[in-house]
Amino acid sequence: MSTDHTSLQPLFDPRAVAVVGASDDPAKWGHWLGLRALRGAHRRRVHLVNRRVATVLGQPAHDSLGAVGEPVDLAVIAVPAAHLDAAVADAVAAGARMIVAITGSERDGDAGGALDAAIAARARTAGARLLGPNCLGVFDAAAELELVSNDLPAGSLGLVSQSGNLGLEIGAKVTAAGLGFSRFVSLGNQADIQAAELVDALAQDPATRIVAAYVEDFVDGRAFTAAAARAVAAGKPVLLLAIEHTEATARAVRSHTGALASDGAAIDAACRAAGIHRVRSPQELADTAEALLRAPRAAGRRVAVLADGGGHAGLAAGLAHAAGLEVPALEPELRARLRAVLPPAAAVANPIDLAGGGEQDVSCFGTVTRTLLESGDVDAVLLSGYFGGYAEYGLGAGELAAAEVMGAAVAATGRPLVVHSLHEEGPALAALRAAGVPSHAAIERTVSALAALTPHPFAATADAPAVRAATPLASTDYAAVRALLADGGVPFVAAETVAGADEAAAAAARLGYPVVVKALGLLHKSDAGGVVLDLGDESAVRQAAADLERRLAPPALSVERMAPLAGGVELIVGARWDPRFGPLVLVGLGGVFTEALRDVRVALAPVDRSGAEELLRGLRGAPLLLGARGRPPVDLAACADAVAALSRVAAAHPELAELEVNPLLAGPAGVLALDARAIAAA
Amino acid sequence: MSTDHTSLQPLFDPRAVAVVGASDDPAKWGHWLGLRALRGAHRRRVHLVNRRVATVLGQPAHDSLGAVGEPVDLAVIAVPAAHLDAAVADAVAAGARMIVAITGSERDGDAGGALDAAIAARARTAGARLLGPNCLGVFDAAAELELVSNDLPAGSLGLVSQSGNLGLEIGAKVTAAGLGFSRFVSLGNQADIQAAELVDALAQDPATRIVAAYVEDFVDGRAFTAAAARAVAAGKPVLLLAIEHTEATARAVRSHTGALASDGAAIDAACRAAGIHRVRSPQELADTAEALLRAPRAAGRRVAVLADGGGHAGLAAGLAHAAGLEVPALEPELRARLRAVLPPAAAVANPIDLAGGGEQDVSCFGTVTRTLLESGDVDAVLLSGYFGGYAEYGLGAGELAAAEVMGAAVAATGRPLVVHSLHEEGPALAALRAAGVPSHAAIERTVSALAALTPHPFAATADAPAVRAATPLASTDYAAVRALLADGGVPFVAAETVAGADEAAAAAARLGYPVVVKALGLLHKSDAGGVVLDLGDESAVRQAAADLERRLAPPALSVERMAPLAGGVELIVGARWDPRFGPLVLVGLGGVFTEALRDVRVALAPVDRSGAEELLRGLRGAPLLLGARGRPPVDLAACADAVAALSRVAAAHPELAELEVNPLLAGPAGVLALDARAIAAA
Repeated sequence: MSTDHTSLQPLFDPRAVAVVGASDDPAKWGHWLGLRALRGAHRRRVHLVNRRVATVLGQPAHDSLGAVGEPVDLAVIAVPAAHLDAAVADAVAAGARMIVAITGSERDGDAGGALDAAIAARARTAGARLLGPNCLGVFDAAAELELVSNDLPAGSLGLVSQSGNLGLEIGAKVTAAGLGFSRFVSLGNQADIQAAELVDALAQDPATRIVAAYVEDFVDGRAFTAAAARAVAAGKPVLLLAIEHTEATARAVRSHTGALASDGAAIDAACRAAGIHRVRSPQELADTAEALLRAPRAAGRRVAVLADGGGHAGLAAGLAHAAGLEVPALEPELRARLRAVLPPAAAVANPIDLAGGGEQDVSCFGTVTRTLLESGDVDAVLLSGYFGGYAEYGLGAGELAAAEVMGAAVAATGRPLVVHSLHEEGPALAALRAAGVPSHAAIERTVSALAALTPHPFAATADAPAVRAATPLASTDYAAVRALLADGGVPFVAAETVAGADEAAAAAARLGYPVVVKALGLLHKSDAGGVVLDLGDESAVRQAAADLERRLAPPALSVERMAPLAGGVELIVGARWDPRFGPLVLVGLGGVFTEALRDVRVALAPVDRSGAEELLRGLRGAPLLLGARGRPPVDLAACADAVAALSRVAAAHPELAELEVNPLLAGPAGVLALDARAIAAA
Repeated sequence: MSTDHTSLQPLFDPRAVAVVGASDDPAKWGHWLGLRALRGAHRRRVHLVNRRVATVLGQPAHDSLGAVGEPVDLAVIAVPAAHLDAAVADAVAAGARMIVAITGSERDGDAGGALDAAIAARARTAGARLLGPNCLGVFDAAAELELVSNDLPAGSLGLVSQSGNLGLEIGAKVTAAGLGFSRFVSLGNQADIQAAELVDALAQDPATRIVAAYVEDFVDGRAFTAAAARAVAAGKPVLLLAIEHTEATARAVRSHTGALASDGAAIDAACRAAGIHRVRSPQELADTAEALLRAPRAAGRRVAVLADGGGHAGLAAGLAHAAGLEVPALEPELRARLRAVLPPAAAVANPIDLAGGGEQDVSCFGTVTRTLLESGDVDAVLLSGYFGGYAEYGLGAGELAAAEVMGAAVAATGRPLVVHSLHEEGPALAALRAAGVPSHAAIERTVSALAALTPHPFAATADAPAVRAATPLASTDYAAVRALLADGGVPFVAAETVAGADEAAAAAARLGYPVVVKALGLLHKSDAGGVVLDLGDESAVRQAAADLERRLAPPALSVERMAPLAGGVELIVGARWDPRFGPLVLVGLGGVFTEALRDVRVALAPVDRSGAEELLRGLRGAPLLLGARGRPPVDLAACADAVAALSRVAAAHPELAELEVNPLLAGPAGVLALDARAIAAA
């Protein structure tokens, strides 16, 4: 399902605009907005509204929106906070289809929530939409619409930002990279228009080649994920800058499964599901956008590292390796071709060190780069070191010619070249940039840009998984949770719920020895001594049952077949509901290793078998499942099926805040859930 | 033991210098060197030597070093490679005490090794020292000595670099930070003078406040570590830029212990031992140096994050957390004081968001920063966002005044402030910089700089551990290795080496049942089915012994008391010799987890009990040892004693390339080594 983008069209290219609160005071928002709105006056009517003065910015001003005398598509409101509600009412009355509420910064926080809801309802009731309040405005380069406080660079990056200042910082950094915005939308408080809808609108904009977002509150995280997935599927990369809410998350969780998944994990899971590039800073956002806009994508992760010195060669190769790139040894045939054009001291195995070859003949940079790109033995070339500054040695013309050879090789092969130069700029670097070769003065930025050009380690799904609610579970007691999961396809050991030693003994006889007896009604049965394993006969069962009842006074007991623990791997499989992204499924090594090693993988639920298997294979402890040191591999398909089944059950039961099987015993011949629990949503 | 730095004094401040190969050709080293050498002509005699012309650079030239006619402390040689040996001979004959051999780049690689050794020997025999060959020269700002190819900035950073181009890049980056070099020494091939000696020389230089090094080959890694530790102890931070040699390491190892420790691990271990800051790139080196040179150190890791917007506040707090800094909730009393000077919408819990307070009253940046620094509730303040650009809003004077308040608060409290500004520069940022406040336009650089100001997580030892060789072990068979380790203090289970079922049965009777029988002579006994556990009576022992002999034809069997495995934690404790850093000790989780989880910590060997305990506590799986989820904690002191004992044995036996106890069974009442092996050095 895709949002109809025409509904937001007046936000980006209105036929008539009114600036409410337009001002001649150079310290006011109404001044900055009015000034920039008038720049589009050759394309649309621009009305300035001010209650007290007759002219603003040399134009006649209206004393109210109603006095404008023609329909206004878009009203941008920059009035004192106390007048916001009335200004929205006026805009609606004047027929505005789109309201951009700059006002709002004095009502930040909880106190503003009610007002936000009221003005959003007022707009929606009248068939209008509202951006903000408390936003920085909107910008569309192609439409020459500048309803923002600052000048912004024009280009092909679409940005949605929930922070004005971060939007300005990203603007400064993309400007430095020679890029700019196709559209910029400041989210503000998202009282009506939310991030997901804007991601759709940006993705559908022909002038936008990349969609970037800074989001603090995803509101409907699934809608955001789906919109991003649609953008990616349409060939427009999505970059996400998001904060790790570590402390807030820590306060929100109650049990150890939850403690291992942060909001950060939910965001990462959404990024994997949608194929989003997650970036950590405005600089990384700009560098990633630049790489994706300028350079071709790499088909794989094999990189040739080329430098004019052993130091740069080794450093770049090490950092590339640390970033998950491969720096493979080159084939003998390719080495021989490189050797033929380089001095004897050069290293040609990869990394390639010209070892003075550049100073002797600067054209070798071009020859070697072209040879590497054409070989097909690598997916990309990373050049690091002095290149870009050979003009200082009087070699400027040769260096420029080499840059042209390099750029032509990139174009001819469709394989990327990225450059780190210890020189900030120069003609050769400018020529490279123009030919689709990004360069940076810091090697870590070059490596990061190259990594962004390589295929995602996780394949994007076209859409986030759908979630359908089932009949809510009436009780979260052990038997009910167990039955729910078993019905959903999670295999459990045979068990009976009983009361007292007599019933326990009878159940054990039906199930067959050895058995386990559990005291129910405890969140962590094992920790409380509520599980007695490996009971081989009736008297042992009676004694265990009596002891549990005496010590723990449980509401009931569960008698279960003893599973063969030896040789199996204990997993923990859980699910929890994130307030923004909905159900998440978690897998990890079980038992005492869960907390000790924090080896957990998280995905949006539900996952199918292949998604579940990807999670399992992503564990650091995956070798234990796949057969480490001569151990037999576990039945990974059965394991994945159980994870997928639990994830489906969780996604269908929003009334369960948490759902967990711990342990899931995985062995060579299948899996068995040995315990389960759920926590009802508050 | 400290090297006598006077022996290198002529390298940095010679009384007379000769440039051999001085040239008028602006494309030649001899030109660049001669030009810069002459800049010091008011402090020392500078002789230019050229075989073919009478004048160079407008000065009379000598046709040989012998023709100079006076003793020359330092001869710098830039002649074609074929003439290098003769030029060194001439320098020695002319009485040079220090020879700087620029020449050499055409003899890179193995072919140059013999020549390097020959010229080094020639110099040492004559009582002279040699820098290089294949180096970029030497620079001393205080002595106005510039025997280098490029202009370098003067300052208080001492740099030793094994790469000329990386030296130039670091120079460019420290220049951009407003810093420079006290001394720069290019290492070249280290045929005579090595990195360790130069670290000592730099640390003992009064003008050098920080020592930085880029090293590819540590040659004597222990000497380097000891020199760095001396510098740190003398109050001069040491920064190390080093490459991760991942592939080379992978080729070099033979067994799984070794496979888990890379040269990178050895370098990290050396850094921990000496208190060295390891950096990953020239940019990080420059940023770290700037922070350490400008700002006071933080006493702890508690940081207040201050921003003029929620986006910058959250992003900075998240990145600070990821960098290992703490962003604690502030005390109510401090919050109240902040609340009193900020608008109602401001967040004051930490991170602190001024929420428009800066635009309303830019002086609040100063007030809030001072309040935070003075409180003592945090160790540092990180400011992120728009500050630095308020002049654009006409608030330049107020912003500058705020910067002065902030700088004064840093000086008064001795606590650091670091700044990220979305503006690259401006008067307020310049004033902050002058007052000891580093600023960067990328938040990740600011966070990294702040992290460098906080205490090292590992305490530095004053000196690297000493290594004393013992009598070499004659055999690496099981019994010999076991005895060696047991004598060294590693507790083993009782065992007897036997041949055949009869001897095995007799040994078992003496040891007491149950026992284990092992087939000796195998590298990985368990994987080959060479270990039979838990034999309870004589017939079981006889059967196991017979079966092992039939299947594996071992040279002998070992009969051992069966240790109580249940409830214990299996560790792997090993040691290996790094070619540069000598003995390393490794600890990790044992059994199948060793390879699956790669949870290993490494230190220079030997370690004492507290060093061993630090390694154990540093494991991700440390909670398993300390008592996770209700398990009893293991006897950590006994564990640490065993690790320390093995590390002492390893350090005393360079003839053993690898030494390993696997598993070391750790339980609540002590530890027991259950198996051991060693591999002789090749």
